[in-house]
Amino acid sequence: MTETMRAAVLRGVRDMVVERRPVPEPGPREVLVRVTAVGTCGSDTHYYEEGRIGPFVVRDPLVLGHEAAGVVAAAGSEVSRHAVGQRVAIEPGVPCFVCAQCRAGRYNLCPDMRFFATPPVDGAFCEYVAVHEEFAYAVPDSVSDEAAALCEPLSVGVWACRKGRVGPGTRVLITGAGPIGLVAVQTARAFGASEVVVTDVNPRRLELAAELGATSTVDVREGAPDGEPEVLLECSGVARAAVDGIRSVGRAGRVVLVGMGGDELPLPLSHVQNNEIELTGTFRYANTWPTAIALAASGAVDLDRLVTHRFGLDEVEQALTAAARDENAVKSVVVP
Amino acid sequence: MTETMRAAVLRGVRDMVVERRPVPEPGPREVLVRVTAVGTCGSDTHYYEEGRIGPFVVRDPLVLGHEAAGVVAAAGSEVSRHAVGQRVAIEPGVPCFVCAQCRAGRYNLCPDMRFFATPPVDGAFCEYVAVHEEFAYAVPDSVSDEAAALCEPLSVGVWACRKGRVGPGTRVLITGAGPIGLVAVQTARAFGASEVVVTDVNPRRLELAAELGATSTVDVREGAPDGEPEVLLECSGVARAAVDGIRSVGRAGRVVLVGMGGDELPLPLSHVQNNEIELTGTFRYANTWPTAIALAASGAVDLDRLVTHRFGLDEVEQALTAAARDENAVKSVVVP
Amino acid sequence: MTETMRAAVLRGVRDMVVERRPVPEPGPREVLVRVTAVGTCGSDTHYYEEGRIGPFVVRDPLVLGHEAAGVVAAAGSEVSRHAVGQRVAIEPGVPCFVCAQCRAGRYNLCPDMRFFATPPVDGAFCEYVAVHEEFAYAVPDSVSDEAAALCEPLSVGVWACRKGRVGPGTRVLITGAGPIGLVAVQTARAFGASEVVVTDVNPRRLELAAELGATSTVDVREGAPDGEPEVLLECSGVARAAVDGIRSVGRAGRVVLVGMGGDELPLPLSHVQNNEIELTGTFRYANTWPTAIALAASGAVDLDRLVTHRFGLDEVEQALTAAARDENAVKSVVVP
Amino acid sequence: MTETMRAAVLRGVRDMVVERRPVPEPGPREVLVRVTAVGTCGSDTHYYEEGRIGPFVVRDPLVLGHEAAGVVAAAGSEVSRHAVGQRVAIEPGVPCFVCAQCRAGRYNLCPDMRFFATPPVDGAFCEYVAVHEEFAYAVPDSVSDEAAALCEPLSVGVWACRKGRVGPGTRVLITGAGPIGLVAVQTARAFGASEVVVTDVNPRRLELAAELGATSTVDVREGAPDGEPEVLLECSGVARAAVDGIRSVGRAGRVVLVGMGGDELPLPLSHVQNNEIELTGTFRYANTWPTAIALAASGAVDLDRLVTHRFGLDEVEQALTAAARDENAVKSVVVP
Repeated sequence: MTETMRAAVLRGVRDMVVERRPVPEPGPREVLVRVTAVGTCGSDTHYYEEGRIGPFVVRDPLVLGHEAAGVVAAAGSEVSRHAVGQRVAIEPGVPCFVCAQCRAGRYNLCPDMRFFATPPVDGAFCEYVAVHEEFAYAVPDSVSDEAAALCEPLSVGVWACRKGRVGPGTRVLITGAGPIGLVAVQTARAFGASEVVVTDVNPRRLELAAELGATSTVDVREGAPDGEPEVLLECSGVARAAVDGIRSVGRAGRVVLVGMGGDELPLPLSHVQNNEIELTGTFRYANTWPTAIALAASGAVDLDRLVTHRFGLDEVEQALTAAARDENAVKSVVVP
Repeated sequence: MTETMRAAVLRGVRDMVVERRPVPEPGPREVLVRVTAVGTCGSDTHYYEEGRIGPFVVRDPLVLGHEAAGVVAAAGSEVSRHAVGQRVAIEPGVPCFVCAQCRAGRYNLCPDMRFFATPPVDGAFCEYVAVHEEFAYAVPDSVSDEAAALCEPLSVGVWACRKGRVGPGTRVLITGAGPIGLVAVQTARAFGASEVVVTDVNPRRLELAAELGATSTVDVREGAPDGEPEVLLECSGVARAAVDGIRSVGRAGRVVLVGMGGDELPLPLSHVQNNEIELTGTFRYANTWPTAIALAASGAVDLDRLVTHRFGLDEVEQALTAAARDENAVKSVVVP
Repeated sequence: MTETMRAAVLRGVRDMVVERRPVPEPGPREVLVRVTAVGTCGSDTHYYEEGRIGPFVVRDPLVLGHEAAGVVAAAGSEVSRHAVGQRVAIEPGVPCFVCAQCRAGRYNLCPDMRFFATPPVDGAFCEYVAVHEEFAYAVPDSVSDEAAALCEPLSVGVWACRKGRVGPGTRVLITGAGPIGLVAVQTARAFGASEVVVTDVNPRRLELAAELGATSTVDVREGAPDGEPEVLLECSGVARAAVDGIRSVGRAGRVVLVGMGGDELPLPLSHVQNNEIELTGTFRYANTWPTAIALAASGAVDLDRLVTHRFGLDEVEQALTAAARDENAVKSVVVP
Repeated sequence: MTETMRAAVLRGVRDMVVERRPVPEPGPREVLVRVTAVGTCGSDTHYYEEGRIGPFVVRDPLVLGHEAAGVVAAAGSEVSRHAVGQRVAIEPGVPCFVCAQCRAGRYNLCPDMRFFATPPVDGAFCEYVAVHEEFAYAVPDSVSDEAAALCEPLSVGVWACRKGRVGPGTRVLITGAGPIGLVAVQTARAFGASEVVVTDVNPRRLELAAELGATSTVDVREGAPDGEPEVLLECSGVARAAVDGIRSVGRAGRVVLVGMGGDELPLPLSHVQNNEIELTGTFRYANTWPTAIALAASGAVDLDRLVTHRFGLDEVEQALTAAARDENAVKSVVVP
């Protein structure tokens, strides 16, 4: 194996270069994965443009990218789950495993999580990454490299549907038809939702939502959705959308706040109380990859359909800014 | 049986008179209950002083009072659960039983609920009420008339603890030490909470909270509570208390908004998301009386301790305004 | 409306005649439904052949049939949900609504349930039935009369999947490919199960299971299924199948005993304990029709595919004995 | 620190000697605990008398004992949770942390669990043990050394009550008043159970059950318990008790099989189905120590009351056989 690899390194705000770095050495239970596809995410773009997300500040050079798939290229001494050559989807956050949150099955809330592309942990815009064998998941041939990478955003949708207890016959409202909203449409349908109404202000995205399974779409510049959903999956990050959505949810409904927005949301208190609405937010995901891969492999969700742009490793900056240049961009993928 | 009874009737804002009214005729599955004790509640006072609560407007003369207990005086033709002479606690809201909410076990969310003292349904500040036999619950001799009446606010506490999944070892924060907060302290302890921190601005109420089982109390004019509760039971109805409380709840914590406040609460969104806090509000209760009576009967909660003032049927106005005159009033009871 | 109707009446063991009976008079909240299709069920056949099922003994003439659909022909004075002419699927058991089980949302466990075709309550092998408006569910045109009737067995499958917490990606074993097993295959897939293994001893039924969505089928005369399912839906009523199935379920698995068999099952105790398997049985269903209709309407399940035989009202005996004469019979439907 | 310690070593069936062994070296995240109390358990006695429990065979010399408490004597290089001198209760099983069961919060079902006194892992009948810092739990001074050790059986009771969803007002039947049954009585009461009926054939144990909180006790040689419990906690390991208990559980009841018995239990199938009883077994516990310590510290359970015999490290054989010699023995504790 070559001893160095190419990596796209963020050195400062809007300052990214491709450097040669040592290929990581896998630990005893880690596999070395040759990266075949990496999706770009709004958080990558945010780090690129602002150099920080809330308390997480890019102080040292950082490799971005956390939606990754690849092929096992080498394995640590104690690895038993995967052989070299296995195609895998990567779960990009490894928790401490032993704290109270981890032991309760909520490892996404582990305070010592090490998450790809979150300072100071490097991500996957590079040729090789080392990852715990239990966080690399075998994918069947029916799942493309890009779809394997997009099991990460799909996990966000799976997690949202679990939190909202979406099931057969559930009526769902999804506010926002960006990449996460479009994944949520598909997961909601795969979970059995019989009605999935999607709102946005971008007609092209609403069209895509309809193609991907939305039973109705509403351009909120022109009107409000009818009906009383049982579950709101808020994927827009827009306070107004969230509040209007919450107000529309019926008795005993559930609200899952997936989109990130400002620090404060004007909660319609008496509506929540009088209807005993359950509201929560999502923070990443836990135990979702097996489900995500099952959905992708069976065709219940179509992740390839989300990929609108592709770039090489030396075009990561273009990948991160594609959405700003093209309002119909959904998901840009980097192929190292 | 006498054919008329005395009833305290609200004729308009701050206009209450004791009138003679016909004793109600119990339906086939109803029992006629001779009322022995009725607690007063903030909502009664609100109707008395404002003539309305939100969409519920007092248009016709109304009997207030929904925290009631009594003795079965007569029984409808199909009653099998109770005999004449049985002491009972009354659940004051009877739903339609057949709608989707009722059939799902959430009858408190029934849109056709008929609830005591909610226009146009009369309440219990009178000598007799008719109630469905399944909404009159036998109480043992160890539960006083007043305690039997206060199984209604106790139900609010039971419901809040269920919603918050309070159990053995749970660390709970209760904001507000009014009647509901003081009930919540006791139910949280009865549900096994190992820490119950109570906040308020009234030192006398905080003392009482401590006597009733709070493991620590905080006068928020002097400081904020330490620690990271797993569950917040918001009983103050004060937005600032709710928001500060929510911000203090730890990872995977639960927030139950019991206190009624304004229409809008500035929700600390990123705290809710990053910690996946589950938030909900309560609207009355469902299936709580058996638990409430068990707690009262075993001594796990002490309802008699909450009664600070007693009044006759012709003193209902004083009962409803006692709290305004005496800041240390907790619960006023009317004994018809 | 005609004042009498034709009804197939069971007068004794294997003694059924078509009689004229009065058309039932709908109560205030009941609709009168002109029956368009009624499925036959093993319990109907059992009553026909044995005159009893356990404690339920046919003492007086009884109309069988509880899988019914029809068209609203008249409505009681307080009916608001349906208009005359509405096509409906019928939920055949109406509980007391007010007991503890009903109020907890478990109305299928109501001790005072009145259930079609269960002595002394008449069923639907007749031209008209009266049913509570909330237990008649509107069906869209995309659902045939027969499929509407078969929302009853579909409800059994929906209930089993709920009890077993089947969801996206779940691996399910279904033992028995009779009518209920074949419904369960479809509901398991509709709930998102990624693997559905079906066992039986009838190759034709196993073929049909595969056509309806089983990912693999096993003739247990030739071998045992591989793998470790997360959920067992036992639909055969055969003790050996149940026990072998339970032994195959993995850690934290769920077992749902749907099939009725003898009074005793030799439970593999240490397997259940060491793997903390959760086991339960199903008794009818609660709150399933909306989901069942949504699944039938969307095409997620295909109920028409189950209908192998059709009969008129004067052929009910043949309908009830079709399965004994033709081992490939799945579902016989009576069209009055 | 001395470099060797005394340990009671099982060399073969009924062959135990005290040997000198090296004091274990704590790993980076382990603490070395000087053992102050170790409870004896039926499984220890079983290994001593039979040399095996099911598939677990004592092939090499083994130290028994898994109910342990002690004082931190030294700490590994990365330990941050405890300081030397801290009194701790020990959770005796450390899972792999990363498998699917562990990550789902069910680490008790980890196939790679390393559990004290389970071949080939040594236990705590010795002077020092090394344990992961997260599996040593600080105990307050109000909890004695013996009570700290008995947080292990208390955890069994806590886990059983969680599995059975025991809460305020629940009516519970406990079959068997041995050490686990007597712990279960106390945990059921601490979880809020309003009725706790206990059955056994030993009058002295039934007396003790009553002293510890049973609301009624029944010697099953003389009669059967009345009533219809909501939850059965089966702690006898006797098939007849389990079956009779299951038959007595009411609609929607829960059955938790804690006691270990034969490999097969004749399950009353139609009772389970008709009442939709949920049945499960317990295998150790997960995430119970914080709750157990809270209950012991608050006085909600009294573990010291269970200790009937005490022995030194050279008397372990007597400790393991005390119950055979004295039918009123409840819990023997070894103090190294």
